[in-house]
Amino acid sequence: MTTKFEQLKNILVELTHISSATALLHWDLETYMPERGAEMRGKTISVMSALCHEKFTSPEFEKLITELNDAMKKWGQAQIPSEIEPDPIFSEEMACVVREVWRDFSRQKKLPKAFVAELAQVTSDAHAPWVRARATSDFSIFSPTLKKIIELKRQEAEYYGYEESPYNALLDGFEPDATIADYEPMFEEVKKFLVPFIACIKEQYAGVADPSSLGGTRDDITSLGMTHGDFDPMAQEMFCKEMLARMGFPFDRGRLDQTAHPFTQGFHAGDVRITTRYDRDNVFFSIGSSIHEAGHAFYDLGLSAEHFGTPLGESLSLGIHESQSRLWENHVGKSRAFWTPLYPRLQSAFPKPFADISFEQFYRHLNRVEPSLIRTEADEVTYNLHIIIRYEIEREIIEGAIAIDDIPEVWNQKVKHYLGIDVPDDAHGCLQDVHWSCGYFGYFPTYCLGNLYAAQLYAAAQRDILNLEEEITQGSFDHLREWLRTRIHVHGRRYVQDALILRATGEKLNARHFIDYITKKYSEIQ
Amino acid sequence: MTTKFEQLKNILVELTHISSATALLHWDLETYMPERGAEMRGKTISVMSALCHEKFTSPEFEKLITELNDAMKKWGQAQIPSEIEPDPIFSEEMACVVREVWRDFSRQKKLPKAFVAELAQVTSDAHAPWVRARATSDFSIFSPTLKKIIELKRQEAEYYGYEESPYNALLDGFEPDATIADYEPMFEEVKKFLVPFIACIKEQYAGVADPSSLGGTRDDITSLGMTHGDFDPMAQEMFCKEMLARMGFPFDRGRLDQTAHPFTQGFHAGDVRITTRYDRDNVFFSIGSSIHEAGHAFYDLGLSAEHFGTPLGESLSLGIHESQSRLWENHVGKSRAFWTPLYPRLQSAFPKPFADISFEQFYRHLNRVEPSLIRTEADEVTYNLHIIIRYEIEREIIEGAIAIDDIPEVWNQKVKHYLGIDVPDDAHGCLQDVHWSCGYFGYFPTYCLGNLYAAQLYAAAQRDILNLEEEITQGSFDHLREWLRTRIHVHGRRYVQDALILRATGEKLNARHFIDYITKKYSEIQ
Repeated sequence: MTTKFEQLKNILVELTHISSATALLHWDLETYMPERGAEMRGKTISVMSALCHEKFTSPEFEKLITELNDAMKKWGQAQIPSEIEPDPIFSEEMACVVREVWRDFSRQKKLPKAFVAELAQVTSDAHAPWVRARATSDFSIFSPTLKKIIELKRQEAEYYGYEESPYNALLDGFEPDATIADYEPMFEEVKKFLVPFIACIKEQYAGVADPSSLGGTRDDITSLGMTHGDFDPMAQEMFCKEMLARMGFPFDRGRLDQTAHPFTQGFHAGDVRITTRYDRDNVFFSIGSSIHEAGHAFYDLGLSAEHFGTPLGESLSLGIHESQSRLWENHVGKSRAFWTPLYPRLQSAFPKPFADISFEQFYRHLNRVEPSLIRTEADEVTYNLHIIIRYEIEREIIEGAIAIDDIPEVWNQKVKHYLGIDVPDDAHGCLQDVHWSCGYFGYFPTYCLGNLYAAQLYAAAQRDILNLEEEITQGSFDHLREWLRTRIHVHGRRYVQDALILRATGEKLNARHFIDYITKKYSEIQ
Repeated sequence: MTTKFEQLKNILVELTHISSATALLHWDLETYMPERGAEMRGKTISVMSALCHEKFTSPEFEKLITELNDAMKKWGQAQIPSEIEPDPIFSEEMACVVREVWRDFSRQKKLPKAFVAELAQVTSDAHAPWVRARATSDFSIFSPTLKKIIELKRQEAEYYGYEESPYNALLDGFEPDATIADYEPMFEEVKKFLVPFIACIKEQYAGVADPSSLGGTRDDITSLGMTHGDFDPMAQEMFCKEMLARMGFPFDRGRLDQTAHPFTQGFHAGDVRITTRYDRDNVFFSIGSSIHEAGHAFYDLGLSAEHFGTPLGESLSLGIHESQSRLWENHVGKSRAFWTPLYPRLQSAFPKPFADISFEQFYRHLNRVEPSLIRTEADEVTYNLHIIIRYEIEREIIEGAIAIDDIPEVWNQKVKHYLGIDVPDDAHGCLQDVHWSCGYFGYFPTYCLGNLYAAQLYAAAQRDILNLEEEITQGSFDHLREWLRTRIHVHGRRYVQDALILRATGEKLNARHFIDYITKKYSEIQ
């Protein structure tokens, strides 16, 4: 089996190199590619993707992974102490690689080729109607396409097979092994806490003459020019790079570039690139998104180089990835400790407006809470309700509990109910996100899971690193980065999420740490 | 055959997409890749190259191209008028595609796999000793490696087969169909003209108090700060971009970036990128190399998009490619016409030193002629002798007429004889170029051929475009670009070089146009 395992590893490494080249095609497309290169680039990317798919689903590969998986299962049974001497040919690591590759392979294998092609075509064709529907705020332009997509996604769930709900089958593609039964109780707990908490904050705003003392409202003149300033993009870039360097982002193993939509692209532990956008009127966007992407990047930078190509060197799930970005963005990047040494630097980079703004005013503005319509602009408190709204709706759509045409109405009711605000039109409501047009059903919950993981991990880090707050106040992040690296990053896909979080924090994932964090932070601010 | 031809085309297009992804890996490596990405990038590139090689040499591909080639040969014979009705299934274009793919395939096929691997290993290992030898100017460090390389190159020539000289077999890899018998008489003619011409220029320098009136010498204080200035790299970039835009370089289909060694990377007609380097003390480097690379880029931009993937959409040979870059760099970019509208822009971009330098002084400095030791820094007159020296030596090495250990001595004698100067050490002599360490024997002549093609093409363009000089003086390059596009670029590999040049200029390649150009230009300057 060792020879066969080596064969498997060689194929996986080759596939990862090919994927890495494909990833560069994507990265370049978003950063430096000349405008008129787009059409051909799309074709190059699809040739490369087809190449990977072909190799991963070839009969030779199927034979190899099936044999290894069968051997592993036998070996797994022999591990039970009462049995005979365990077969020494499999190591724990080899077993993990085979288990995870088998997971990917068997999932992919379940979909007929024609179905995969149809889904790709339909979701690709869906982009234009979604853009038009959003631009004119007319859901009826998008709904026929959405109906087709949902039919296909239900079909996809049938191909995979599932327990309880077809939605579980789709979720598994983004957050392996997670089920509704696991996380819905936590979401309910978060909702039960947040809805009255946010209503209370709204109440407070209504009762005071100067809401900025409570964090300010977006368009309020009292925001002192912080969100409607004139921030030179070059100066923003310099500031972000300095900030990232202080956080320990290794510029000899990474880059920061500009794109329309920020993202992180990790090629391997020696080359992980992040991007941001410099809004002239709002410096908080590039700062927040740079810290967020750096959190993703630290994960990819911390993956095992030795295990490059196999699941042991790959990130685990979208939820765990998001936990890394949200931990840095919110728990670190919106803390007093983080900004204590950095705010003077921000003041000297942008004397207008910050020279006249006290640290306390800045900190409150950074952490203002305000129910709003657009998810991507939401603060860390209201954000989870945006996610829960989407999750509840998409689960019901997939289960057939609500009709597509009713989505706008259901959406608006939930926004009113949870966030207390009215949705003026569908562009600011159910048409705002691209995900459904891409066929990403089951993706949204990972954002909320990421926040729960983040809060629990950060609480554990605070417990394990004695002077964490003080270290951060002194601009030192080494212990925190190392804690995350050894607890999360290096393990790749060795453990499933439950086991990983249990090992890292000593308890199963729960919503308590998130609720405690929000309660403590915002009762101090209010 | 049409179905088989379509099959062939599909495979070729797929291969070209894969090569395009590989090319992006190279481009990124030279431009934006973080330092520590290098090692893994090398592996990704070799996986991608192996993938292409595997597909191109697979038994299925061999069967397909062999069948098509056999069918084409029959069809070709049937084209002779006296024969029966020609088989209508092959078009002229299809025949050309099959002919060229067969050329590439059969050439590659002749080398045993183990030999290719050995050559790749030996030349890859040769880089370090070459660097060390050059750094310490010690040929003995490099000579054992060079002996191995030459042995392999002779072996390679035997695998290919050849007439007259094994050198012809190697040349064929860079300049298909070209042979020593074709071009050596032209090289002799160039040499016979240049040696006394340059000696005469040297003589003139020796006789006057102020050599700058004759073009100046490199380190002469009379160069008025033109080569040892302080040129802000950002200002250089802005100037080069403006200059390229005036030349018609389409920035929506291309880019200009920075690298250590300038190069052009064409992905397809919608995305062609050039690079340069900004030397702080010498603005002429970035200007000259930008124009040179733009010439290469215009070729790639002018290739047929319709024929993307097949030889009809590929550039023809290194010599033809170099003709495009040299035509722009020298015939256009070092002319009075080109600089008449542009020099005031240069003066305002770099008031120091150009505000105090007259157009005439600038023009003479730009076109100064001076025998020197380093090829890459040579002017357009002496450059060809640098090439001829290398060509004569490498031909003799491959033919076994001189021993490896005698290279330094032979080199130095030729430099003395042709250029009239003494070589102080091998770093400034036979160790200066990387080519031999890469196994590139047969590459150098294409530089000189490029210059001859360029002169002949430019003379023809001057004849065909009535007011070319005037147009350029007015900053208009549309007719010239279009002339080159329709005469050279769009044809791809449809014609071999001889036929292409004959069609474009009305005569076979000859050295007369180059000699006329140099004589006319420099008798006017002197």
